[in-house]
Amino acid sequence: MSLPRSPLAPEAFPDLPEIAGVRFAAVEAGIKYQGRYDVMLAVLEPGSTMAGVFTRSATRSANVLDCQEKIGADSEQGAAIIVNSGNSNAFTGRAGEGSVAAICEAVAAATDLPAARVFTSSTGVIGERLPHDRITSKVAALVEGLKTDSIEAAAQAIMTTDTFAKGASATVMVDGTPVKIAGIAKGSGMIAPDMATMLVYIFTDANIARADLQAMVSDVTNRTFNNITVDSDTSTSDTLLMGATGASGVDVTGDQDFADAVHQVFLDLAHQVVRDGEGASKFVTVTVEGAASDADARTHALAIANSPLVKTAVAGEDPNWGRVVMAIGKSGAAADRDLLSIRFGDVLVAEKGWVAESYREEDGTAHMKNPEITITVDIGLGQGRATVWTCDLTHAYISINADYRS
Amino acid sequence: MSLPRSPLAPEAFPDLPEIAGVRFAAVEAGIKYQGRYDVMLAVLEPGSTMAGVFTRSATRSANVLDCQEKIGADSEQGAAIIVNSGNSNAFTGRAGEGSVAAICEAVAAATDLPAARVFTSSTGVIGERLPHDRITSKVAALVEGLKTDSIEAAAQAIMTTDTFAKGASATVMVDGTPVKIAGIAKGSGMIAPDMATMLVYIFTDANIARADLQAMVSDVTNRTFNNITVDSDTSTSDTLLMGATGASGVDVTGDQDFADAVHQVFLDLAHQVVRDGEGASKFVTVTVEGAASDADARTHALAIANSPLVKTAVAGEDPNWGRVVMAIGKSGAAADRDLLSIRFGDVLVAEKGWVAESYREEDGTAHMKNPEITITVDIGLGQGRATVWTCDLTHAYISINADYRS
Repeated sequence: MSLPRSPLAPEAFPDLPEIAGVRFAAVEAGIKYQGRYDVMLAVLEPGSTMAGVFTRSATRSANVLDCQEKIGADSEQGAAIIVNSGNSNAFTGRAGEGSVAAICEAVAAATDLPAARVFTSSTGVIGERLPHDRITSKVAALVEGLKTDSIEAAAQAIMTTDTFAKGASATVMVDGTPVKIAGIAKGSGMIAPDMATMLVYIFTDANIARADLQAMVSDVTNRTFNNITVDSDTSTSDTLLMGATGASGVDVTGDQDFADAVHQVFLDLAHQVVRDGEGASKFVTVTVEGAASDADARTHALAIANSPLVKTAVAGEDPNWGRVVMAIGKSGAAADRDLLSIRFGDVLVAEKGWVAESYREEDGTAHMKNPEITITVDIGLGQGRATVWTCDLTHAYISINADYRS
Repeated sequence: MSLPRSPLAPEAFPDLPEIAGVRFAAVEAGIKYQGRYDVMLAVLEPGSTMAGVFTRSATRSANVLDCQEKIGADSEQGAAIIVNSGNSNAFTGRAGEGSVAAICEAVAAATDLPAARVFTSSTGVIGERLPHDRITSKVAALVEGLKTDSIEAAAQAIMTTDTFAKGASATVMVDGTPVKIAGIAKGSGMIAPDMATMLVYIFTDANIARADLQAMVSDVTNRTFNNITVDSDTSTSDTLLMGATGASGVDVTGDQDFADAVHQVFLDLAHQVVRDGEGASKFVTVTVEGAASDADARTHALAIANSPLVKTAVAGEDPNWGRVVMAIGKSGAAADRDLLSIRFGDVLVAEKGWVAESYREEDGTAHMKNPEITITVDIGLGQGRATVWTCDLTHAYISINADYRS
């Protein structure tokens, strides 16, 4: 399968800064895909701290379960992250646990790390046994190839139905010293994260204790990856890992500029996942304000963003605000029909329970022709507010998911 | 727009028995559609009891709000149901309430019923003012045309994106006397009922008190219409009304055979709505057993039935049980990956957390080629059980909903 690059893709992979204390490598292991990288390795120096957020799926993969067991431990011993694409090692029973153990042991032996500091992810088809020998046989080559400037190859190795590799970075001055953040992500379908999304790996040379890093990662994830959706389906493999090497020597504990920069990188990657949503032709920002609470606002926003009827209307460039009303009505969160107002872009479409007097259909239609659509709803009940991001639902989504097994 | 008849449609509209005490009429009012019936009237004789179930949408239409106010009253005065297609009168503010009042008054005047016994439904586009004069000007003709054998015309009048008119009936012997039940329904998209679905009207000549009828209708709806889904979107207009004329003279209070017959009619109509799901090419029965509770089983079953990835796999005739595992995992209900088993038709696909040893892909594929697919999951935790019905997600759904406004 070869999918055309998403029309919403950025022009090129960004220039990412090297993060002192992290090296990357990628290889072709031929797990499922041929002629492309499909395994990446990242190795972090001793003194790094690690944090992670994982899918809450009850059928999560052996890799996720293993990462969750390991992520809470304090350690000064460095860490490794090894990821394959083409096979998710999910719903593979005891064999899946054996594959994770074999991969961790191979990486541990080649890097002098304990297996407890090796984190694995697998992404691809569910329910087929992972041919982990193809990975373990490449570990020596991966370790030999580790370089600080190979993050783009790593981003390529983790792609499945992605049509472009995803990277983002920020550099922030803390106490007069630049601190760098760089991350990569994959994701395109089965995107409705619940605690995390897909595969995301973010690195920084900041110095920060594990517990503080974890708290920040969880908070920022809730405002970024947990607020995107492509198709309301939640992966069995969702994993976000962030590693802080401390190599900059800068302690960022409690630093708001650093937290803001992390937020910026997470949000950039989250948006790139939506821009590569299977079949996407429109990038849609749904903002709900005036809800009874922030939680209610998010419930409304996700109901709009996940509605097949709203998403197909966007695909058809139809300013069909009636479907937005429907989605608000079904969400279960508080709403009063006669207090609602709805905007498409800057165009006030509906207010006080009916179409706005000033509304002209051609204004709504003009906004819908843009590749980037904003839908803003004021519930009129309180101060609750949330923004989520999604894409439209097109024929290409059906083709991608009906016509072959990803 | 003219959609091809669903490949899952029954061969023809069934022969429905006349229900003593109810008469029907349909007219062309030109509300939106031209050259077809778009308004129906049903009038029930004095002594009839009425029960109803309605959408729980927070943005429900003026018609639904009006019906909900009226349905709980005990009355010996007979009743009327008037329904238009082409415009849902939803999200039309105060004007919507005015339209309902005008229609109820016109019907009341022409039938000698109080307006409190006139029930209205409207279905079609949301947010456009209902041109109710086109309806009120036809009320005299409707009343004049009332006949006991015009239920098929009524079923035609309430269609929107439906590709076939839907009817079902049962005759059950109670105390040696035949009691008849006949019903009609419309629905095709925006189907994920929450308390009721779309528009459904069911009539019987049984004798049953209002409160008993309501209790039975609510219970049966929960096992039929509330367990179907086309696209996870819930209508602002969902209405189910059942009227019992008592003309048979048979008291059915507490009669299990009668309740079973009502269940059969509801289920038949609910299945017909799924068979006419927008773009449907497969009728899918999802049964979950062995869940921790019936509620958990329903949550799992709906997660499977609403998953775009499961539905596109069905459309592609792909026995992609990994997506079923994913849906169970995301549903939020209790599950243990290593206890799950999954069957497609009679084919055991997965058990104990992995693909079944006996499974051959060609067996799964053979089942998926049928127009009727069954997916059965044993959660392995308890006795909870539920069945829901859905259809696949195809290119035609996208075309129907992206390419024009319904």
